[in-house]
Amino acid sequence: MSAHAVSANVPSADVRLFEVGPRDGLQNETTLLSVDQKVALIERLVLAGARDIEIGSFVHPRWVPQMAETGEVAARLTSDPGTRFWALVPNPIGLERAIDAGVKHVAVFLSSSETHNQNNLNRTIAESLANLEDACRLARAEHMMVRAYVSTVFGCPFEGQVDFARVLEICARLLDFGAFQVSLGDTTGVGKPYQVREGCRLALEAFGPEAVALHLHDTQGLALANSLLAYEVGVRHFDSAVAGMGGCPYAPGAAGNVSTEDLVNLFEAMGLDTAYDLDAVCATARWLNEETGIAPRSRYFAYWGAHHPQQVP
Amino acid sequence: MSAHAVSANVPSADVRLFEVGPRDGLQNETTLLSVDQKVALIERLVLAGARDIEIGSFVHPRWVPQMAETGEVAARLTSDPGTRFWALVPNPIGLERAIDAGVKHVAVFLSSSETHNQNNLNRTIAESLANLEDACRLARAEHMMVRAYVSTVFGCPFEGQVDFARVLEICARLLDFGAFQVSLGDTTGVGKPYQVREGCRLALEAFGPEAVALHLHDTQGLALANSLLAYEVGVRHFDSAVAGMGGCPYAPGAAGNVSTEDLVNLFEAMGLDTAYDLDAVCATARWLNEETGIAPRSRYFAYWGAHHPQQVP
Repeated sequence: MSAHAVSANVPSADVRLFEVGPRDGLQNETTLLSVDQKVALIERLVLAGARDIEIGSFVHPRWVPQMAETGEVAARLTSDPGTRFWALVPNPIGLERAIDAGVKHVAVFLSSSETHNQNNLNRTIAESLANLEDACRLARAEHMMVRAYVSTVFGCPFEGQVDFARVLEICARLLDFGAFQVSLGDTTGVGKPYQVREGCRLALEAFGPEAVALHLHDTQGLALANSLLAYEVGVRHFDSAVAGMGGCPYAPGAAGNVSTEDLVNLFEAMGLDTAYDLDAVCATARWLNEETGIAPRSRYFAYWGAHHPQQVP
Repeated sequence: MSAHAVSANVPSADVRLFEVGPRDGLQNETTLLSVDQKVALIERLVLAGARDIEIGSFVHPRWVPQMAETGEVAARLTSDPGTRFWALVPNPIGLERAIDAGVKHVAVFLSSSETHNQNNLNRTIAESLANLEDACRLARAEHMMVRAYVSTVFGCPFEGQVDFARVLEICARLLDFGAFQVSLGDTTGVGKPYQVREGCRLALEAFGPEAVALHLHDTQGLALANSLLAYEVGVRHFDSAVAGMGGCPYAPGAAGNVSTEDLVNLFEAMGLDTAYDLDAVCATARWLNEETGIAPRSRYFAYWGAHHPQQVP
């Protein structure tokens, strides 16, 4: 199978999960982790089977203090031929910092809703695209892989409905710039099952299965049903965060990214291989909880935890 | 549409939910509710749109003390042409008690796993069937509607795999006895998506859509994905419990019945009508929490709660 032609080193699996906990998860948690804790978390994720891990971002620390030490984290990680470490970069300046830190794979991002992009990035989508075109060109010149997040594709907290034709246009531009994959972000978890299925179908039809990932937040509990339908129309790449980290600190109870353990359990229950060890993912969520106080928000962890009583040391 | 020919009074909906919170939910909670609290809960469920509610059981109070006062609860409820109140009965003796209490609709139960039936009911499946044949005959002679639960259809905690051909045989017997519907119970929440879909497909093929219901426990977080697939093969009847009550008191964190609010939200997101008012279901879950301390376990309630801050009186 030629599914992973982009990086022949990475073992194949029926479904590929992209671990965003150390970045999208942690940046939305109120708890700050030390560099030691972040490195330990990432190393545990590698041992649990993660093949793609976003380790942090090079966004200005004024905006995201949780990510201030991403360079130090990157420097501490041992490269592994089976694992790709990624960092999020907002623009060419962030990219330069990533290059200086020795990061090999980067992710860029923008929103498919004009108002959300303005609120989040303080520029228009057209300005974001111009900016990312420069960043992508620079990254590709350095032989880096680039992944692109497109936010709010199934709905925007400011504008409501988002025109999916516009989403596809933005995706096409990012792929033209040299991104190898676009990740369709249901940023606030408003995607409805048949809407997500249809959006994925259109994106797959336009770009093919290796160029499309789905990035869900389990805000309303629909992420697994949506993932199942997305799989059925051909999506093979899914973003997730261990322990379901993330979400909105000012909306208590609102869930974050779909959890890695819930997604691995779903796919295993569907008879699919994800390359993850589900017990090890859950043990990582428990370790994170003990080490940092961040409570796992996944359904599967509660089940697993009840059947794996903590060892008394 | 003739879908609800069995009871022309009940308004139609795309999907019919059968509320089991006051019985299957509460009987597995350690918190005991007073008769007043049970009646208030059931009345709130009616106002939230519940059309079928299991209000308790006539199992011997030595075994299920939570249900000792079902007769008193039944006596306190005002009959409503749009709502059917049900009570669980284990045998002809329980049925007599239900008749004495003026209950019009009863549910019977057994397991599709020999070991689980022995453990739960202290008799073989053949003995249970003989017993339920008598109960069904008696109930039908009184012009009562009978519904039948078949437990552990997707797996048994003692035996592991359950032969689905045997499940279908048991269902056929119960329908022959006069049950109008069998509810396929995933008692411990072990059903896998394609397994549940195939089981439902076979049951629908054998008995038709009005005779088949699905009764899921959201132990591992797969209940909504399983419900979606079941809907897609034609299941139109689903059991649920407000607040996701139930589960196993000695397995902390293990979830109970799939929650009414998660299921209503799923079906609404699929563009389907359930006859429920989702806000009113969530408000009922909150009331239950305040009144009894039982914490809602659903994903949707956490989201709803964050967006519906409690009024300070």
